[in-house]
Amino acid sequence: MSNLGEFALRHIGISPDDQAKMLACLGYASIDDLIEAAVPAGIRSTSELRLPEPVTEAQAASELAALAARNTVSVPMIGLGYHPTVTPPVIRRNVLESPAWYTAYTPYQPEISQGRLEALLNFQTMVGDLTGLPTANASLLDEGTAVAEAMTVMRRASRSSSRRILVDADTLPQTLDVLRTRAAAVGVEVELVALDGPLPDGDFFGLVVSYPGCSGEVRDLAQVVEEAHARGGLVTVAADLLALALLVAPGEFGADIAVGSTQRFGVPLFYGGPHAGYMAVLDGLERQLPGRLVGVSVDSAGRPALRLALQTREQHIRREKATSNICTAQVLLAVVASMYAVYHGPEGLRRIAGRVHLHTVRLAATLRRAGHDVVNRHMFDTLTVRVTGGAHQVVAHAHRAGLRLRLVDADHVGVTCSEITTADHVQRVVEAFGCGGEADHRGRGDVPPGLPAHLRRTSPFLTHPVFHEHRSETAMLRYLRRLSDRDFALDRGMIPLGSCTMKLNATTEMEPVSLPGFADLHPFVPADDAAGYAELVAQMQSWLAEVTGYAVVSIQPNAGSQGELAGLLAIRAYHRDRGESQRDVCLIPASAHGTNAASAVLAGMRVVVVASRQDGSVDLADLETKCVRHTDELAAIMVTYPSTHGVYEEGITRLCELVHDHGGQVYVDGANLNALLGVAKPGEFGGDVSHLNLHKTFCIPHGGGGPGVGPVAVAAHLAPYLPTHALHPDPALRDGVGAVSAAPYGSAGILPIPWAYIRMMGAAGLREATRVAVLSANYLAVRLAPHFPVLYTGDNGLVAHECILDLRPLTAATGVTVDDVAKRLIDFGFHAPTMSFPVAGTLMVEPTESESLAELDRFVDAMAAIRREIDEVSNGIWSVEESPLRHAPHTAASLVGEWACRYSRERGAFPAGASVDKYWPPVGRIQQGYGDRNLVCSCPAPTAFED
Amino acid sequence: MSNLGEFALRHIGISPDDQAKMLACLGYASIDDLIEAAVPAGIRSTSELRLPEPVTEAQAASELAALAARNTVSVPMIGLGYHPTVTPPVIRRNVLESPAWYTAYTPYQPEISQGRLEALLNFQTMVGDLTGLPTANASLLDEGTAVAEAMTVMRRASRSSSRRILVDADTLPQTLDVLRTRAAAVGVEVELVALDGPLPDGDFFGLVVSYPGCSGEVRDLAQVVEEAHARGGLVTVAADLLALALLVAPGEFGADIAVGSTQRFGVPLFYGGPHAGYMAVLDGLERQLPGRLVGVSVDSAGRPALRLALQTREQHIRREKATSNICTAQVLLAVVASMYAVYHGPEGLRRIAGRVHLHTVRLAATLRRAGHDVVNRHMFDTLTVRVTGGAHQVVAHAHRAGLRLRLVDADHVGVTCSEITTADHVQRVVEAFGCGGEADHRGRGDVPPGLPAHLRRTSPFLTHPVFHEHRSETAMLRYLRRLSDRDFALDRGMIPLGSCTMKLNATTEMEPVSLPGFADLHPFVPADDAAGYAELVAQMQSWLAEVTGYAVVSIQPNAGSQGELAGLLAIRAYHRDRGESQRDVCLIPASAHGTNAASAVLAGMRVVVVASRQDGSVDLADLETKCVRHTDELAAIMVTYPSTHGVYEEGITRLCELVHDHGGQVYVDGANLNALLGVAKPGEFGGDVSHLNLHKTFCIPHGGGGPGVGPVAVAAHLAPYLPTHALHPDPALRDGVGAVSAAPYGSAGILPIPWAYIRMMGAAGLREATRVAVLSANYLAVRLAPHFPVLYTGDNGLVAHECILDLRPLTAATGVTVDDVAKRLIDFGFHAPTMSFPVAGTLMVEPTESESLAELDRFVDAMAAIRREIDEVSNGIWSVEESPLRHAPHTAASLVGEWACRYSRERGAFPAGASVDKYWPPVGRIQQGYGDRNLVCSCPAPTAFED
Repeated sequence: MSNLGEFALRHIGISPDDQAKMLACLGYASIDDLIEAAVPAGIRSTSELRLPEPVTEAQAASELAALAARNTVSVPMIGLGYHPTVTPPVIRRNVLESPAWYTAYTPYQPEISQGRLEALLNFQTMVGDLTGLPTANASLLDEGTAVAEAMTVMRRASRSSSRRILVDADTLPQTLDVLRTRAAAVGVEVELVALDGPLPDGDFFGLVVSYPGCSGEVRDLAQVVEEAHARGGLVTVAADLLALALLVAPGEFGADIAVGSTQRFGVPLFYGGPHAGYMAVLDGLERQLPGRLVGVSVDSAGRPALRLALQTREQHIRREKATSNICTAQVLLAVVASMYAVYHGPEGLRRIAGRVHLHTVRLAATLRRAGHDVVNRHMFDTLTVRVTGGAHQVVAHAHRAGLRLRLVDADHVGVTCSEITTADHVQRVVEAFGCGGEADHRGRGDVPPGLPAHLRRTSPFLTHPVFHEHRSETAMLRYLRRLSDRDFALDRGMIPLGSCTMKLNATTEMEPVSLPGFADLHPFVPADDAAGYAELVAQMQSWLAEVTGYAVVSIQPNAGSQGELAGLLAIRAYHRDRGESQRDVCLIPASAHGTNAASAVLAGMRVVVVASRQDGSVDLADLETKCVRHTDELAAIMVTYPSTHGVYEEGITRLCELVHDHGGQVYVDGANLNALLGVAKPGEFGGDVSHLNLHKTFCIPHGGGGPGVGPVAVAAHLAPYLPTHALHPDPALRDGVGAVSAAPYGSAGILPIPWAYIRMMGAAGLREATRVAVLSANYLAVRLAPHFPVLYTGDNGLVAHECILDLRPLTAATGVTVDDVAKRLIDFGFHAPTMSFPVAGTLMVEPTESESLAELDRFVDAMAAIRREIDEVSNGIWSVEESPLRHAPHTAASLVGEWACRYSRERGAFPAGASVDKYWPPVGRIQQGYGDRNLVCSCPAPTAFED
Repeated sequence: MSNLGEFALRHIGISPDDQAKMLACLGYASIDDLIEAAVPAGIRSTSELRLPEPVTEAQAASELAALAARNTVSVPMIGLGYHPTVTPPVIRRNVLESPAWYTAYTPYQPEISQGRLEALLNFQTMVGDLTGLPTANASLLDEGTAVAEAMTVMRRASRSSSRRILVDADTLPQTLDVLRTRAAAVGVEVELVALDGPLPDGDFFGLVVSYPGCSGEVRDLAQVVEEAHARGGLVTVAADLLALALLVAPGEFGADIAVGSTQRFGVPLFYGGPHAGYMAVLDGLERQLPGRLVGVSVDSAGRPALRLALQTREQHIRREKATSNICTAQVLLAVVASMYAVYHGPEGLRRIAGRVHLHTVRLAATLRRAGHDVVNRHMFDTLTVRVTGGAHQVVAHAHRAGLRLRLVDADHVGVTCSEITTADHVQRVVEAFGCGGEADHRGRGDVPPGLPAHLRRTSPFLTHPVFHEHRSETAMLRYLRRLSDRDFALDRGMIPLGSCTMKLNATTEMEPVSLPGFADLHPFVPADDAAGYAELVAQMQSWLAEVTGYAVVSIQPNAGSQGELAGLLAIRAYHRDRGESQRDVCLIPASAHGTNAASAVLAGMRVVVVASRQDGSVDLADLETKCVRHTDELAAIMVTYPSTHGVYEEGITRLCELVHDHGGQVYVDGANLNALLGVAKPGEFGGDVSHLNLHKTFCIPHGGGGPGVGPVAVAAHLAPYLPTHALHPDPALRDGVGAVSAAPYGSAGILPIPWAYIRMMGAAGLREATRVAVLSANYLAVRLAPHFPVLYTGDNGLVAHECILDLRPLTAATGVTVDDVAKRLIDFGFHAPTMSFPVAGTLMVEPTESESLAELDRFVDAMAAIRREIDEVSNGIWSVEESPLRHAPHTAASLVGEWACRYSRERGAFPAGASVDKYWPPVGRIQQGYGDRNLVCSCPAPTAFED
């Protein structure tokens, strides 16, 4: 470890002394020997990664500050769905910068996730109230993908069998770009329509309208909605959430679906992301919602308790029957947006929206008075101004005054006001248009109204007490603390989730995200403003290409699912360009993540499953059969390596050869890259394309369920087919597949995290992290095997970076389920391992390199104690129903009052001995069935929590 | 409230609607009426404060960022006791920037302070280990005051009755300045001595030596220590803590006391403060320690539990018998320094010290090889180089290269290496000295040793497991979280501590403290480097003068106690300059804070107590008697206003007149300024001098027990006598009293907090905060009076900003003590009010303006429920020993196992009903007596915590 940088020694939790102990336990003399035995020789890299020498934390921070300083922070008045906003500092510090929030996992274990589930329920209530639609999900990736998801919902739910969708001509260009990409892949025709007359003839299954439009125009949509409905189509309204504080809600004029972004509710611009998209639907469509939906259920004591009513983890995706490939959400950002609404309340939102609107109306009046042609009839925050032949000049003038306007075309300028707009900004805009004199600053009563009465909202929203009780900073601070205290995150203990790689999210990686130079950049500023980002992105892409062995990387996909889609679309385009557009079969091993199949379907492919052998590996004989059978149609295979069984399969080289021999491309899912980095490169051992999960291997925190970043890496022959973007044209990508995310660089704002990780680890550090992750997983496998058999190992009895514990025989013998074990682990102060994936009835454990030996041993002790409790059931001491396993987790409240259990309170609550630092779950075991039968997805009245 | 800024509406916790409800409860039509009734007409200000209009949070942040940007961050190699250091980011984010740590109060309620008490015990262990002395306290204000405190300890403990102290001529200039100020005030003669020969003839009670010296020289001090002891003197060693990782410890060569700064253990330079000073002493001196000392005791279940063994809250100061006036400590900074040691461990500290030393030795070798005269014989991190006539040029050359060296005089340059020093910095230093070629970068073995073998440390330190278990960032993060979770701070609930003003510490106020432009400035950089600080300080001083009605303010005092001392020294100097140096009597009302008397003694004054009347007010008849009796000797009166009884006394005007008539000065203690701001000005109603507590009224967080800031404000005639500083001469202050703090601007680094508060509140906001604080206190008084009588009120039955609840009759009747009530409040989720101050057997409640009505009502409900529990005792339901009051607080662990109480578990643990958000105290009631009998002040072995 002598050549490791200082940071690597902090990132890796196992000290050299402890490594020696663990190797002794495994019977290996050195970590080199272990890796040699575990990783097939044929795929091991022989050379070190070509990365810059590692730097210290202080140096990395200083380099990132320098990059941030190369970005120009201006006053963006560009609009296009991205708006400057004021993140309340109490929310920034206590959510965005708080490990208790950002190191949490997705709330699949609801008993230890009640805090963020409440925040997400607030989010759903906020979106539902503002849109006027009853059920909202708990965030999508961005507005563009939200519209694409709405397309598929409408297509499934519409009475029409048409393949045509009508789209408002006044739609955001990036939304249109994403929609076109997604529509083309599944054979939907997109037709742009102007909304000033009747809809065009012919069938359509859906209509997408913007409210306000991209131009800023606010239309009365009631009639067009009625017409669409009458003709069998459903209607999606892409709505600006702040505008809805003033405008009649989409639900009030008949929309079936509302989608959009919640960015301007306190979430920094982040040069395009991450932000939380939203979707709300009419009754009857709630079970069609993509993504996640928080619902209210009850716990074992019958008290209200929250849990996900829709779980869309990659493992839950219904493979080729899936209707969406979205796994993650944007929880951290959704929490920020919801807290913004909690802090401001309805009157605060009305005040902010009103101020934005008044600035806009005053600007319009001033420009008109000066003789300018303001195109808009009705407006909320955006004007389009016709300045024939003069648009460039106006934009340039504003630029010199520190403002960024939208250059629509040579004759039109767009101007958008926002929460940060001041009278001085308005004055500078007026001057940029060459008007003399002062902007119109008359009071509200004196300026012409921007909205007619019939478009003005009169209905109430955010009436729930939560939006009224936390208005002082003191109250808000305590609410945030209270919620985060309910949750178990990495800052409390190990989260050994197989396939999720819950490793350290170092502070030095996180801090730069708050720098104004990274946080406050609009995605569509001129390139000169974003020189720092350009370098950051270029370095990230080249480093990621180096570590994966591919030629080119695109960081546009803002989640692994979008990376998969981008990779598959590239494969399809490649085949098509070679005149083989009939190649549409995607082979997928039975053990794959469900997302793989879902992405293939969204890419317009047919899924053919390849069997697994008894030992869990891909059945190469079956693979060969399928290859032969589909040799002319074979597009690709999607394979995870190491496999989802946590094993380095020896057959990977042969697998790649077989598929290539039959003309297919090899997609290596990068989910398990934490077992490869610095040891083997998918691009070298046979992969043509991979996506990476920067929120796993590269330390972006899970944020309680997002953001993720899912770059796609491709070999040279696929490079021309990477994602493009309507507003950031790239000459190298004229064959590109279109946009897969709304922002050109996806979740650019959090790229400093993986950048810092790679910069501080260097080649040796990345390699050592992988080696220690494998060491720790094998240590756990060996220590746990006496209690729970390890299901799959490689030829030499070793696992990769995770291991599957087989509970099925014990379950059959005793009735103790994986759920029982998972919930009992909470009493011991652990988050459960991954449950029932990839094999039902098992637990998959991934320790990562960041945990210490002490924490691994604590986990082993807990699992051994649980095994003894299972034995008590099999020995007839008590039944499973009577056992502490079934009653887990035990709340503090359950200790008072009558104690009906056969075991003691102490045994129930303190199975590892009394500790002053015990984490207490806020609720007992949650009844999933109750919540399924009674779908409640907005904040329940406070009386629901009374006894 | 219409003219309030946005921020004021977030800072003030009571909404307009709730204000109306509260006024109705009090029977006042408006808050104007209430204030008119509460505050004597004679002192009310008639004009609004002249302050700039309030700005929003975003604007304040932007203005502070601009100020920070006007400071030049360079590479300081100045030394003089302040060193650049790397704050580990995990500690910065999770301590310095974490409300759980910084909003905590001093750990006087130990049951809910176990987290920071453990951190402070680590601090004591760290200091004790490194200095080789058995008992260290839990931080002092800075190195300068630590030396002054050591002087008084030595004087008390020495066999000698001499008034003379010998001081190493190679002492830091600011330490000498503070020591001279303090010595002069109490009649101690300071004599500088060179240590290269025998000590001068004549008696002395103590000797202070520096290790290393200011020049960087490391001397073998064994012989001089022996000589001092032989001649009846004690020896204090001012030692650099990092140097002690390499040097023989002071305790190993016979020192009685070691003092110094812990700044370079990860605490930012902060332009001079705040940092934590330390003091460690030999066995037998531990009960002479000033400040606070954490000790190990046991709780009601017999388990180890920590608490303060020495409590030095202002209330506990033993008035005129006090040996020190220090109340606060520097807890937040001490926590940072201790965590730095926890994170690095002994080998990390040795590595850092070794690297610093190696750079220094290489630099010395290179300079010597180039013919320069390096004065030092032995060195750790600092060189003094003789460059006859060339010092200015060398320093200027280095300046241009981004370095700051120490200009000792025209012929000498000082250079100090630090944790951030790189080979490149050394190279630039070499070039500044005009040497050609490369710096000597040879390995350790090749360079001449900087330290002889007999000065090198061989003894171990930091051997306790806590300094070995948290080396990965993951482990460190969890340790910090675990400790903070044990504590109750403002981020969990109200802390209604009378006289402590625990109000909101807003995020916008806190964030700028982390800006490099504020955090990374050495206090002795050239003035040009600190232009931003100069403006910040000037504005703060002028705003504070405006709000208090005084002419001039000095922000040098870094705690209220130092402000008091500075004010009294100014008074003494004023009298002396008028030829009335016999005026040395300081009148102090019986109800005063103990600190007042202690400060008077330290200022060389005689304390005469003025009686209180039955109603708690100052007995003006007795005052007149004392004034008459001491008319020729009367120096001053120190009076708190509103009084420490929480009442606006009508007699204040007459009091001031009386004292002035007898030639005395009026010192108005600013502790209760939160009841005056914007309503009345002490400088207008009769005060000649006040100190302010910026950590009370002006939102600097209490930090778990410091830092505080205690500016002194004076009328024009006292202005010439404000504190000065050896290294920042001010021509306006040639009559100044010398330094009272080591740094010229005290705790400059946290001045952005009160600056932001004033900037965002503006005149109207500050006034409204005062009014709401008074409203809330009166609301509590009225609501609580039916349960506990309010002891003192003004003529119209109103209190000021706090109220005293009299428990004495109930205690007499039932045996229920204030302690019982305080501990029972923990079960309800509250920090106790102030106990037994200013009247034994009472509780003093101060809600501040930041609490919401909901939280006030929750407190009233809890107190009412406690009163019912007291009634159960008087009704004979159970004895006080059997009651839940005496068993409080109830831990979670107490709920399992046998339940021996007569009341139910539910009643014990959930007196306010079950809540998922309950705060659980980590220990039960702590036995103070056990800890007093068994003084253990360093980390106990882990086995102590086993059952």
